[in-house]
Amino acid sequence: MSQESLALYQAMSTLRAVRRLRPDPIPDDVLKRILQAAAWAPSGGNVQPWRIVVARDPAIRQQIGDLYRPQWQVYGHNARKAMEQLEGEARAKRGRMLDACDHLGEHMGRAPVLLIFCFNPKHMAITDADLGRASVVGGGSVYPALQNAMLACVSEGVGCTLTTLLCYEETAMKDILGIPEDWYTCAVMPLGYPVGGGHGPISRRPVEKLCFENQFGQTLEL
Amino acid sequence: MSQESLALYQAMSTLRAVRRLRPDPIPDDVLKRILQAAAWAPSGGNVQPWRIVVARDPAIRQQIGDLYRPQWQVYGHNARKAMEQLEGEARAKRGRMLDACDHLGEHMGRAPVLLIFCFNPKHMAITDADLGRASVVGGGSVYPALQNAMLACVSEGVGCTLTTLLCYEETAMKDILGIPEDWYTCAVMPLGYPVGGGHGPISRRPVEKLCFENQFGQTLEL
Repeated sequence: MSQESLALYQAMSTLRAVRRLRPDPIPDDVLKRILQAAAWAPSGGNVQPWRIVVARDPAIRQQIGDLYRPQWQVYGHNARKAMEQLEGEARAKRGRMLDACDHLGEHMGRAPVLLIFCFNPKHMAITDADLGRASVVGGGSVYPALQNAMLACVSEGVGCTLTTLLCYEETAMKDILGIPEDWYTCAVMPLGYPVGGGHGPISRRPVEKLCFENQFGQTLEL
Repeated sequence: MSQESLALYQAMSTLRAVRRLRPDPIPDDVLKRILQAAAWAPSGGNVQPWRIVVARDPAIRQQIGDLYRPQWQVYGHNARKAMEQLEGEARAKRGRMLDACDHLGEHMGRAPVLLIFCFNPKHMAITDADLGRASVVGGGSVYPALQNAMLACVSEGVGCTLTTLLCYEETAMKDILGIPEDWYTCAVMPLGYPVGGGHGPISRRPVEKLCFENQFGQTLEL
């Protein structure tokens, strides 16, 4: 395997949600490389139907943090209840994750940078819009850019995590950020240098559980 | 900038749609690394609500190719018409792109590997499901995996492109691949070694056109 491949796989295999962030600023050149990574992402018809509002102003960040806190409290309360179904190490692990989520819920507005990803569905060919089931294809022209940004964060030593709860507050978010009528929000990504170890080991299903050969459910032999 | 960052940015900045693919097989170890890259991607609640059917059987690939051809013919016909609005180099460039799309439209089934990405919306928290506008958030738990797979392809020298037209043939696709009732399709990604130069230069808007400071539309100074 090439050195380039190794570096790429190193970033991918250590990209984890980093939810405890220091308030220290992110230097402009680092931030610019993270945004450039997003800009390189492919999109349907190369239309790039997304924009990022980079919130660095403390007052703007605080307003967003104040919207996020109660949303997380509701979601987190339910997640704690669901956690009671778990036992042993799985439960302890989930508990530690939810502690970190609680921390982010309290401190979202103090992350030095919030990236608010916006999109315009008029510029998307959403081929699964009318199938009578949840549509996801529009996301195919947006979330590759988020993934690029997050991989760049790993490489730059910047903590990050993808949140979508603020879609519940889209009207208020559009108001705070001056987002035009035909643009919408699809993620808020807080960035900051990590309080703890930052990116590192991840826990994922093995390829064999996720990938099949020729028929759904059929073992893939590689 | 670190060597790791350079390698990562090299892959991101040369990931382009590669639509002319040789029928030569992809070695198992290469394919496994591409699938592992997908498996590393983050997803909401770490649920990984996606699966990949890896179609390598020629008969299965041909069936999928036969579904894709007429879908592309309709889409491509409209795209050629829209191209007539363009002039000069922009028009010539679009024409070359559509020629490559036509090639893929004819030969999709001859790519040695087709990755069919499936998802289950029951395992997703789709926070923008009820906002009265196109929903994309479900894609946030799937398309990061596709982006990882495509970046791995760059690094492995394997051509790829993300297609979503076969959502229009979802019922037939589910039948061909034995996809259960509560799982759906969100992309078909043909893989193969490139006929031409493969991945390489890309054309994207500059960061300054895509990213704003604090308010949508406000210049970001970095």
